[in-house]
Amino acid sequence: MGSPSTATRVSSRRQRALPPLATRYDRRLAEILAHATEVFCKKGYEGASMRDLSRESGMSLAGLYYYFESKERLLFLIQKHTFSTIVVRLKARLEGLDDPEERIRIFILNHLEYFLANQAAMKVLSHEAEALKNGFASEVAAIKREYYRICVGLLDDLKQARGLQFATRIAVLSLFGMMNWIYTWHNPRVDADAASMAKEMGDLFLRGVTANGNNRKER
Amino acid sequence: MGSPSTATRVSSRRQRALPPLATRYDRRLAEILAHATEVFCKKGYEGASMRDLSRESGMSLAGLYYYFESKERLLFLIQKHTFSTIVVRLKARLEGLDDPEERIRIFILNHLEYFLANQAAMKVLSHEAEALKNGFASEVAAIKREYYRICVGLLDDLKQARGLQFATRIAVLSLFGMMNWIYTWHNPRVDADAASMAKEMGDLFLRGVTANGNNRKER
Repeated sequence: MGSPSTATRVSSRRQRALPPLATRYDRRLAEILAHATEVFCKKGYEGASMRDLSRESGMSLAGLYYYFESKERLLFLIQKHTFSTIVVRLKARLEGLDDPEERIRIFILNHLEYFLANQAAMKVLSHEAEALKNGFASEVAAIKREYYRICVGLLDDLKQARGLQFATRIAVLSLFGMMNWIYTWHNPRVDADAASMAKEMGDLFLRGVTANGNNRKER
Repeated sequence: MGSPSTATRVSSRRQRALPPLATRYDRRLAEILAHATEVFCKKGYEGASMRDLSRESGMSLAGLYYYFESKERLLFLIQKHTFSTIVVRLKARLEGLDDPEERIRIFILNHLEYFLANQAAMKVLSHEAEALKNGFASEVAAIKREYYRICVGLLDDLKQARGLQFATRIAVLSLFGMMNWIYTWHNPRVDADAASMAKEMGDLFLRGVTANGNNRKER
């Protein structure tokens, strides 16, 4: 472990899973991911060096390489942690909820709550979506795909329950756009909190997909 | 002109306006902006060097500094050119159109047409929104503010004409989110063209803001 050889690094990537965030070591790891997020947010992923990350986190450069192996693996851990957390929380909240409209509102609320509480991470995730390669990229892509499919499923349930007709893909990606764009403009001094924003965006989106025009074939 | 002294650079920034894109020199300038856009898109603004920009555009490093003075001024020229073009085209298309709903549809179409035709530039503009400083930043901010206000005006006209009630700021920024997020997912092999996307997003958005619930005070 900690060997700088490429072979070791590649194999350890798959074997070493993060333990639950409980021990002192894990809390330190979470802290370093938070610092790395700030640095990536400020300087961009390409512009940030392991040296910047070391300076900001207070961990030695050697230690950073020992524990995280590479800048890419740090970005991977940030992305994986964020998307997994959002999906796990969403599933817990949807448990036992049957009304299709209410389930979409929960999806929006869960997304906005996490986004507004973690704006720096959200900016990094939006901007550096394509920075990861190969194994790292496909592991993150799988979590994102699961999340996207949950949303497609929620909309298809609503369509079926109400006999609606609209392009699910454009509706889902429009909803993601409305929610994700928030990191560019949300100002806590002027703008409402996550619950009110979720109510407004939920009204706008749900009226958009359920309004009269979508009940019959128009085109 | 072309002196490397800071004083000259700062004063020439304000005095030297771009001529209309007509001469051979101007076409070359447009080409270099296009190359710079690609480089910023690939490496990020922080990660890209003047040397990268020189290599990609085929202009010598000395020439690049002579004509553009700095990486920041290149980013500024890209941002200014893009936002000005969108605003100028929008105003021309709105001329003589009275129906508030139709005017919003034209706003959406104009935005999506430009975005889908210039996806690389759009990614740079989204990611590097905060990279410019001082004079550069405020000049670009003024164009963006004008664009935002046009959209607010269009929505307020619709509200008044139909007696609607909704939060204009959230509606406008949700619309921008829906449209701008496209650069992350639009795939010309799978997804519809700008006109069809504008129709779908226009339906979703306009139904969202005009549907029954918005005609009376709900809360």
